[in-house]
Amino acid sequence: MIIEHPYLLFLGDVHDALAAKTATGIVDWRKDWCKGQLRLPGCAADTGLPDMSISEAAAAGVKTMVVGAVNAGGRLPEHWIASVVEALDAGLDVATGLHVRLESIPAIKEAAQRNGRKLFDVRHSTQTFDTGKGTKRSGKRILAVGTDCSVGKKYTALAMDKAMNERGYTSSFCATGQTGVFISGRGAALDAVVADFISGAAEWISPETEDNHWQIIEGQGSLFHPSFAGVTLGLLHGSQPDGFIVCHEPTRKTMRGVKTPLPTIQQVIDLTIQCGQLTNPDIRCIGIAINTSALGEDEAKAYLAEVSKAHNGLPATDPVRFGMENIVDRVASEFGAP
Amino acid sequence: MIIEHPYLLFLGDVHDALAAKTATGIVDWRKDWCKGQLRLPGCAADTGLPDMSISEAAAAGVKTMVVGAVNAGGRLPEHWIASVVEALDAGLDVATGLHVRLESIPAIKEAAQRNGRKLFDVRHSTQTFDTGKGTKRSGKRILAVGTDCSVGKKYTALAMDKAMNERGYTSSFCATGQTGVFISGRGAALDAVVADFISGAAEWISPETEDNHWQIIEGQGSLFHPSFAGVTLGLLHGSQPDGFIVCHEPTRKTMRGVKTPLPTIQQVIDLTIQCGQLTNPDIRCIGIAINTSALGEDEAKAYLAEVSKAHNGLPATDPVRFGMENIVDRVASEFGAP
Repeated sequence: MIIEHPYLLFLGDVHDALAAKTATGIVDWRKDWCKGQLRLPGCAADTGLPDMSISEAAAAGVKTMVVGAVNAGGRLPEHWIASVVEALDAGLDVATGLHVRLESIPAIKEAAQRNGRKLFDVRHSTQTFDTGKGTKRSGKRILAVGTDCSVGKKYTALAMDKAMNERGYTSSFCATGQTGVFISGRGAALDAVVADFISGAAEWISPETEDNHWQIIEGQGSLFHPSFAGVTLGLLHGSQPDGFIVCHEPTRKTMRGVKTPLPTIQQVIDLTIQCGQLTNPDIRCIGIAINTSALGEDEAKAYLAEVSKAHNGLPATDPVRFGMENIVDRVASEFGAP
Repeated sequence: MIIEHPYLLFLGDVHDALAAKTATGIVDWRKDWCKGQLRLPGCAADTGLPDMSISEAAAAGVKTMVVGAVNAGGRLPEHWIASVVEALDAGLDVATGLHVRLESIPAIKEAAQRNGRKLFDVRHSTQTFDTGKGTKRSGKRILAVGTDCSVGKKYTALAMDKAMNERGYTSSFCATGQTGVFISGRGAALDAVVADFISGAAEWISPETEDNHWQIIEGQGSLFHPSFAGVTLGLLHGSQPDGFIVCHEPTRKTMRGVKTPLPTIQQVIDLTIQCGQLTNPDIRCIGIAINTSALGEDEAKAYLAEVSKAHNGLPATDPVRFGMENIVDRVASEFGAP
């Protein structure tokens, strides 16, 4: 599954900016892949891209219209269907992360067939994977893991990929969630894969590559989350990381959506190493990424220094505030310069 | 999903006994649920049940025809379709563990609708689950775990359930795989569930029950299997066992289907406790079940004594050869008499 860019981002007529967070995420990381946005009357979201009609987008070379907004329930509202059909008729592919499958809507299915265009439902896995093999692949891999869901694993992986490239490493971002798939143009929403194929899908997501190529893999869930730990473990085994970064949100007291208390960073480091050794005996933690937005600048720096000291001097950072330089330094000292 | 019995077991015209192992498994454990078998000309399998036509089965009160055989590829051969339609027309439900979905075959879908009958594709999860919550449920639970796939976890759980009942405990078998679902009439093939819902499905499989009711839960995979550990971890978290039994096949050198070496029994005990504590802080190992078929009777006994001694006196048995009495004794000493 390769989603071709440039993209036109369809925002529909959603009532707030948060409903368009998929589109916002794409613009944050791949603005150069986006030619414009298409908004229906009443739309309250705005990515800052130029407004553009479908025919303008087609003329500008857009390959895929991405539905980058969701309404409540993840359905495709009736009055969005005409835009999807128009995009297909204009020769664009269409991609969404909605609950509903595009091809379950007859008018859309027919338009795709009529025009020979592709429909991507990244929330649904239509792709067939092999079961995981656990065999060591060439190339180097870094996985973002976390004390919980939604603690910045995607952001950390994307920021690390960017920082590695800027420092002269060859690296690429490997997506395991919906927004990540749009940002990388490839990948799979791991949470939508059939359970038997989690690690196999992770192996497909981070395939064999050149020895000096670094794949920076988006994490999912937490080994300590009672709802999603299975996905996390399959991803860890399949991605066989050489290094991992632990992401943490220090104000959170219980795991997202459940009553389970958060594990400590050290517990996550220990269990990730213990389980990760199954497919990569040399796995090690290379850094800690913390959301310090609740703290002032000086407090945040003091807190990160304290976290680093408490974990054998592992580099600690807030990716949004302070970047990934200290963790890239660690990669250089542990694995060598680019 | 409740599959109603009595069953008629459909064996088709498979060319060997192994192709009918689902039917054989059902007869081994639920012979009293089975009225007969239906074989087409040329069938080489035989469960020992009386041969019976569909009309005879309907007259005998059969509620469900179970397709208990697979041909290569898990498809439904063209010439089996007439039997499925005939069963539906006779007022029976039909259940299979095939790769193909029954309702994807128009003649079968129409016959089911025409007669208001149910189709069960236990390999495919049509059921919707919630995500796992990790909340402690009333009732007591025992989970079979393993050093690998296919080391006797289903057999161990069924034998434990039987032995517990015979000793006066209230217990029931909870199925997590295809054959198990036919044996229990309820459950879900966990490997076919969407990844996000593994632990949620496990919670549904072993729901809240009376305090003195024991649910004996069929295990899947191994925490040390690089293909399937995610399923195993989600099952462990969702089933929140009070006790677990480690199943092991001592002649196996590498994990099934991959090149990864087998873990030790002690490694499985330690990691199961470490991870299982997330949803049940009191989790403990209550016994070890070993396939000793490669050994003579005296050798087997000596080996089991050695295994027990090496693991702090945990009871060790071969469920097929020596039954589950010593592990039920352990339940009595750890958790009290029935």
